[in-house]
Amino acid sequence: MYSSLNTNGNAAAFETGPVSGRFAAVYSEVQNSRIDHALPLPSVLRNPFKVVEGPPSSAAGNPDEIAKLFPNLFGQPSAMLVPNEADSLRSDLKLKIGVVLSGGQAPGGHNVISGIFDYLQDRAKGSILYGFRGGPAGIMKCKYIELNADYIYPYRNQGGFDMICSGRDKIETPEQFKQAEETAVKLDLDGLVVIGGDDSNTNACLLAENFRGKNLKTRVVGCPKTIDGDLKCKEVPTSFGFDTACKIYAEMIGNVMIDARSTGKYYHFVRLMGRAASHITLECALQTQPNITIIGEEVAAKKQTLKNVTDYMVDVICKRAELGYNYGVILIPEGLIDFIPEVQQLIAELNEILAHDVVDEDGIWKKKLTNQSLKLFEFLPQAIQEQLMLERDPHGNVQVAKIETEKMLIQMVETELEKRKQEGSYKGHFKGQSHFFGYEGRCGLPTNFDASYCYALGYGAAALLHSGKTGLISSVGNLGAPVEEWTVGGTALTSLMDVERRHGKFKPVIKKAMVELEGAPFKKFASVREDWALKNCYISPGPIQFVGPSSNAVSHTLLLELGAQA
Amino acid sequence: MYSSLNTNGNAAAFETGPVSGRFAAVYSEVQNSRIDHALPLPSVLRNPFKVVEGPPSSAAGNPDEIAKLFPNLFGQPSAMLVPNEADSLRSDLKLKIGVVLSGGQAPGGHNVISGIFDYLQDRAKGSILYGFRGGPAGIMKCKYIELNADYIYPYRNQGGFDMICSGRDKIETPEQFKQAEETAVKLDLDGLVVIGGDDSNTNACLLAENFRGKNLKTRVVGCPKTIDGDLKCKEVPTSFGFDTACKIYAEMIGNVMIDARSTGKYYHFVRLMGRAASHITLECALQTQPNITIIGEEVAAKKQTLKNVTDYMVDVICKRAELGYNYGVILIPEGLIDFIPEVQQLIAELNEILAHDVVDEDGIWKKKLTNQSLKLFEFLPQAIQEQLMLERDPHGNVQVAKIETEKMLIQMVETELEKRKQEGSYKGHFKGQSHFFGYEGRCGLPTNFDASYCYALGYGAAALLHSGKTGLISSVGNLGAPVEEWTVGGTALTSLMDVERRHGKFKPVIKKAMVELEGAPFKKFASVREDWALKNCYISPGPIQFVGPSSNAVSHTLLLELGAQA
Repeated sequence: MYSSLNTNGNAAAFETGPVSGRFAAVYSEVQNSRIDHALPLPSVLRNPFKVVEGPPSSAAGNPDEIAKLFPNLFGQPSAMLVPNEADSLRSDLKLKIGVVLSGGQAPGGHNVISGIFDYLQDRAKGSILYGFRGGPAGIMKCKYIELNADYIYPYRNQGGFDMICSGRDKIETPEQFKQAEETAVKLDLDGLVVIGGDDSNTNACLLAENFRGKNLKTRVVGCPKTIDGDLKCKEVPTSFGFDTACKIYAEMIGNVMIDARSTGKYYHFVRLMGRAASHITLECALQTQPNITIIGEEVAAKKQTLKNVTDYMVDVICKRAELGYNYGVILIPEGLIDFIPEVQQLIAELNEILAHDVVDEDGIWKKKLTNQSLKLFEFLPQAIQEQLMLERDPHGNVQVAKIETEKMLIQMVETELEKRKQEGSYKGHFKGQSHFFGYEGRCGLPTNFDASYCYALGYGAAALLHSGKTGLISSVGNLGAPVEEWTVGGTALTSLMDVERRHGKFKPVIKKAMVELEGAPFKKFASVREDWALKNCYISPGPIQFVGPSSNAVSHTLLLELGAQA
Repeated sequence: MYSSLNTNGNAAAFETGPVSGRFAAVYSEVQNSRIDHALPLPSVLRNPFKVVEGPPSSAAGNPDEIAKLFPNLFGQPSAMLVPNEADSLRSDLKLKIGVVLSGGQAPGGHNVISGIFDYLQDRAKGSILYGFRGGPAGIMKCKYIELNADYIYPYRNQGGFDMICSGRDKIETPEQFKQAEETAVKLDLDGLVVIGGDDSNTNACLLAENFRGKNLKTRVVGCPKTIDGDLKCKEVPTSFGFDTACKIYAEMIGNVMIDARSTGKYYHFVRLMGRAASHITLECALQTQPNITIIGEEVAAKKQTLKNVTDYMVDVICKRAELGYNYGVILIPEGLIDFIPEVQQLIAELNEILAHDVVDEDGIWKKKLTNQSLKLFEFLPQAIQEQLMLERDPHGNVQVAKIETEKMLIQMVETELEKRKQEGSYKGHFKGQSHFFGYEGRCGLPTNFDASYCYALGYGAAALLHSGKTGLISSVGNLGAPVEEWTVGGTALTSLMDVERRHGKFKPVIKKAMVELEGAPFKKFASVREDWALKNCYISPGPIQFVGPSSNAVSHTLLLELGAQA
């Protein structure tokens, strides 16, 4: 019944360590069928090409400060691969390239690595690819594995980051940069590909700057990874993993919608991953058309309070009850309460109080809260109050991430509905069911889109390193067209940067791309959400298909953004 | 981007009431592609057939009592459709058939109805099919809709029960039986198909007995529905919906496994739907090979305590830590704590105390608990204690279903690990993540198996009614073979029955089929679970595919049970 891989003739063995590979892993039929899925490459990568440069670049903000922080890299042009009569890069160069996965999992990471590997095989035969194990710490500690065809094979088109695993360490201090240099020198690295989110790509650029400043030959190229979809710009239309994760969540949401409509008695409150930006929630809404969707950026822009959000939900629930619908589906971004100014204020005050004061059982400590924060605190359900007080991270901070916002909102909605029932303005019945869709989306089998996109990102990143580029982020564009027509190049990481003032110093940052209230995806959503609220326009996307209808569909967010640009 | 159905030329309209149909529903591409999916029929249903009878039947237990409860039906033989030279049933009979969905949703319900409808179209042209709305209450209140081809079309191969919706009412009292009779007479019903679980099929048999006793012409046939998989016997190898639900859960579990392996730092505690029996948990374990799986029936058979279960988990976690694995995946059946004798005892005592006594804050009420129950109560995490005291159903009973067993176990495991750390026998690190996979599995798009199985169940049920049978459950067998070779017939519902003593009377029941510790699926699991515990044998089934590899796979449980029978 099970089919197992047998690339090393050792199918009976099991993996014996955290990063010992999938040689002998047991695969499902679908996993197996994906391994040999032929990946299309953009035509520019299938033919001879040369690398051309654009005009000098600037920065996303504060170019003067960015120029000071990146004296060697600031202003460098973007690069674009274009067809050429003959290959312009020396195929006899034997490169030594490292690759590292940084931060949380996103479907497609293995394909970026496969893309780098295949490029080297195809165009710089004899090159070596090192995989740094366990994230940036692997670079600092020089913990790596040499990746070969057999090792990579079982990970092709597979989810997860377990080929080399990831980590959340950062290369920040002078000693850490020194360690990275030592590794680069020890392994004689020509290049390094950093696969990560906004922070990791900022770090990649600092590393590139540092290596260049030290006259090391090691170039650094980044790749845009995050299911949250908040690392993007004109040249990098989306981060990888977003497509797959949203489709997995949308499958579940669609199922829950059909359940809601069939049962007729539940309101499903679905919290979705995405701490900083609400892209996932917005994309899932566009795919499934729920009754209520809260977008954190809108809540922040309108300076809404928790009471405002609750009232909006309750208003819709009351109107639906009048229409005979005592059920519905509500989407909430994980980071919702971070977006609410009064909550941020309360949490800041709590962090301060909890750090310095004794929290007495009689609640005298509460007197240290401002009036507004005290009012909000008392408005919160008791379980949430307790969570705010008890769950702390290692720095002693309130762990907002641990708050089950969907459960909190159910309780608050219940309380408000009870009030309206007493007043006679609500005659329906309400039962909330809570869901959190998060981890199940980070490591799914990549969709055809993510599989192809990642492969092109990796293949392109290797081409950039081969051509001697550094401080760029691999950029694959024209994603609304067939893969054949995708564009491939690199964008100056410094051009995505701004500075933030931290501890009295300017720090470079790639600002997270938030949901734009003037952007096409949000405007589309805003134009139809009233219909969705009262009518039932549910769409159930069903499970991701790898062949047949919809198997090559692109996310609504991407399509709408591309449409708006066109 | 959206495609919409347009069967009534009114795609712009939205549905306007809870059971107004999906005429104008907006469909995803995958939903759309499924509507026209051609369903294979067993060859016996595609050709002329006759209905033959088996030997007289008995009961699952206490045949004398069952005979008294079903004087008209007891002992009747099963029926089997077999090929015949010519059709044996009159195709000029114009039948009036009702159909009702009873209880919780299960993927495939719409296909049972499609099967009934198509049978009538194919073999008794001019017949009428009534869909009773909102479950058995629809029969009692004579709330129905006449189903026609246009109405049914958009539901073909779709999830949910919203075509006619379901309900949990029972037809029990003499007045309720009277109401059902009135409906049967008013609509001049020749037959009724009851789609439901063990209770609903018991009810269907009582209705059949009652109609027969009153000399009504209305025959009643049941269909085996429940994602829990606990309605099955030799003749009814599985209930529909089990296949789809398990595959949806297994997709998510597989994703979480890859996440666990990639991150290396979480233990995912996954609670799975299935209150009474642990079939879903066992099937998901066989599909995904997690590190720890708790099967309720085993816990009950071995009279394990909550402490035993916790210790088993902690033992595995400690051994894994020694091997360098501080992560894992643990499956828990929703009904776990129901299986633990000491918990049942505690809950019985709590129900008694809460019904009659004042629960004082000082905890003097606790003195009414037996020593053993008090000890267990104090052993439970505080949040669970509160839940037990606060959440009550309308009958005042503790709502065990509301207890988040997975969170409770995480807390208990944490406490025990902390103890072992102090003792020096555990040096790992532990972070639990909780999941509950339930509602997202009940209304998914049916797998090819469930789609075909349900269609055959419905088509066969109509054939049984056409041939004048009553008190049978539609039985489709030989499910390990291609659909072509499936057998079709009906099994005497009385032969599945036993009695239970309730309120001093014998009540007929179809006993839930529990996980058999001597059955092939459990034995298979038990033979490999130690390997799964310490090695990482994770399988990620991926999303359900409707074409290509694995799209026609049958559940492991069914295959193993069929294999054991063969």
